[in-house]
Amino acid sequence: MENLIEAIRPTTFIESKSLSRLFDADITIAAETFQHTGSFKFRAAYNVALNVPNSHIITASSGNFGQALALACQILNKKCTVVMPDTSAKVKVEGVKSFGATVDLVETSKIGRVERVDQLMRENPEAYRASAYDDFLVIEGNATLGVEIAKSGKQFDFLVSPVGGGGLVSGIITGLCRHGSTAEVIGAEPRLANDAARSLKEGKIVNNEYEPQTVADGARTLSLGLHNWNVIKTGVKEIIEVSEENIKEAVKILFTYSNLKVEPTGALSLGAVLENPKQFDGKKVCLIVSGANVDMKVYKKILES
Amino acid sequence: MENLIEAIRPTTFIESKSLSRLFDADITIAAETFQHTGSFKFRAAYNVALNVPNSHIITASSGNFGQALALACQILNKKCTVVMPDTSAKVKVEGVKSFGATVDLVETSKIGRVERVDQLMRENPEAYRASAYDDFLVIEGNATLGVEIAKSGKQFDFLVSPVGGGGLVSGIITGLCRHGSTAEVIGAEPRLANDAARSLKEGKIVNNEYEPQTVADGARTLSLGLHNWNVIKTGVKEIIEVSEENIKEAVKILFTYSNLKVEPTGALSLGAVLENPKQFDGKKVCLIVSGANVDMKVYKKILES
Repeated sequence: MENLIEAIRPTTFIESKSLSRLFDADITIAAETFQHTGSFKFRAAYNVALNVPNSHIITASSGNFGQALALACQILNKKCTVVMPDTSAKVKVEGVKSFGATVDLVETSKIGRVERVDQLMRENPEAYRASAYDDFLVIEGNATLGVEIAKSGKQFDFLVSPVGGGGLVSGIITGLCRHGSTAEVIGAEPRLANDAARSLKEGKIVNNEYEPQTVADGARTLSLGLHNWNVIKTGVKEIIEVSEENIKEAVKILFTYSNLKVEPTGALSLGAVLENPKQFDGKKVCLIVSGANVDMKVYKKILES
Repeated sequence: MENLIEAIRPTTFIESKSLSRLFDADITIAAETFQHTGSFKFRAAYNVALNVPNSHIITASSGNFGQALALACQILNKKCTVVMPDTSAKVKVEGVKSFGATVDLVETSKIGRVERVDQLMRENPEAYRASAYDDFLVIEGNATLGVEIAKSGKQFDFLVSPVGGGGLVSGIITGLCRHGSTAEVIGAEPRLANDAARSLKEGKIVNNEYEPQTVADGARTLSLGLHNWNVIKTGVKEIIEVSEENIKEAVKILFTYSNLKVEPTGALSLGAVLENPKQFDGKKVCLIVSGANVDMKVYKKILES
C-alpha cells in the first residue's frame, strides 16, 4: 500500500440519538477508535513513514504514535525504534513490540526522552527523527480526517477535538479548510495540562513546567508544536479546559450511551461539552473521539468512579 | 422515515488486523453495536412497526427487542407496550421507557410472560402481538444485514452469527441467499442454552426445559421460532456450542483487541472461534457482533474475570 488514503481506515461516524437527547444538541461522533492501532495517530505515522526517504525511523512516544509508527514501518518495510517512558501503559508497550519495532524504555527520572533520542540519533545518523506531533507530514496525515468530516455531507456548527501537542486539531483545521467547511473548531484540553489554552490567551506558545499527570495520557505534552501553533493560533476558536472528573465522566457516558470504548484522551471532546453544555445547545456538533488504547485496569477504575 | 433502509444504520465493518493475527484467520467484524438502540434488533422491530396496520404493538422481550420496538414505534407514532421480566438488565428497562413505551414488569415466578401478553391482548384486541424473533417481518428486517454483508465486496468462507430464537441467523441467511453469497453460515449458541444445536442434530425443534441462565441473556430462549427453523434447518451448516468461560473471554478479547464494547450475546460469534480455532485457520471469516447493551456492573465483572 503506497497510498495514504488506501492505507487508513475511514473514520466511523456515529450519529448518536442518545447523546443528542442527553445534551439537546445534534451530536455526531467521529470515532478513530477503530483506526489501525486504535487511534488517529496512524494517519500521521503512515504519512511520515511513506514520505521520508530514510529506512530507519526513531521517535519518542508515550504510546499511540509509537504503535502507529511501528505498524506503518512494518507495512512499508522500514526499521522503527520507539523511545518510551517506563511508566507507559503496558498495552501500548506491547502494541509497539507486536509490530516488530524496537522499544527503548527509559527511566525518565534519569534521562529525558529527548536526550535519549539525541543519543540514538548520534548512533544512527542515517535515521529519521519523527515527531509525534510537530511535523508538516503529521499535520498532512491528520488532515485526511478533516477532509472526511468536510465530505461527510453534514454542516456542523462546531467541531470539538482533543488537544495534546496539537497535531490532530491542526490537521483537522487544515483538512476542513481545504474543503470550505464553515464549522468552528474548538479544542478540548485537560485543565491539568492547559498550556494550549494559555497559549491561545497569551498569543504565543506557553509551556507546562513539567509533564502534567492528567488521566488523559495522550495530552501529557509540555507544549504545542511550532508547526501546529501556526495553524491553531488563528484556526481554533477557543480551547475548553476539562476537569479530570469530566474526562472520566465522558468516558462513562460514551460507554453507556454510545457503546464506545474510549481512552481518556479520546473522551476530552465530550468532556468539553460537559464543561459547558449551554454553548452547544441546539447546535450541530461533531465530537472527535481520537482513540481507544487504555489499560483494562485503568478503564475498570474509571467505570467504578 | 417510511423506508426501512433509510431508517436503519448500516452495520460497521471492522477488518481486524489484531484479531486476524491472534487467530491466523482473516477476520472481519460486522458490528451492530452502533445500530439504533445498540443492537441488530432495530432492523426487525422497525420492519414490524412499519408494516403492520395496527397503531398499538405489544411484545414480550427481555430487552433488546423491546428497546428497538419502542424506538421504532416512537418514530412511527405508534403505541408500544413491552412485557419484561423483573430480572431484566436495568439499562434495558430504562432504555425502553426512554422511548416513550409502557414497560409491563412481570414476576416470572408468578406469571409467565406469554400469559401476561395473552392478558394484555384480551384487554387490547386492536393491538398487534409482535414476536421478538418468530415472524416473517422479523426475518425480513434482519435480512437487511445479510444483504449488507453480501454487498460488502468480500467473499467470506464463514459467517458466524449468535443464535437465540434464531431471528438473526435466519434473516442473515435469507439476505445472503438473495445476493448469491457462498459463505457458509455457522450459528453460535451458549452451551447452557443449546436447543438450536440439539434441534439441528435431531432434525426437529427441541425445547429447553426452562429458561437457561447463561450470561448471554439475549439467548435465554426456550426454543427456535418456527419460521426461523424452516430457514435454519437447511441454511445453517452447524451450530457451535460456546461455554460460559469462552463467552466472557470473547467479551474481553473484543475489548482489548478490537476496542469494542460488546454484550455477552454479541460475543458468541467470537466465542465459537475460541471453541474451535482450527476450523477457521486461514479462512475469511465474518463475525456478527449483534449488540452492546450490557449493565456496567456486569461488564466490569466480566473484565475482572
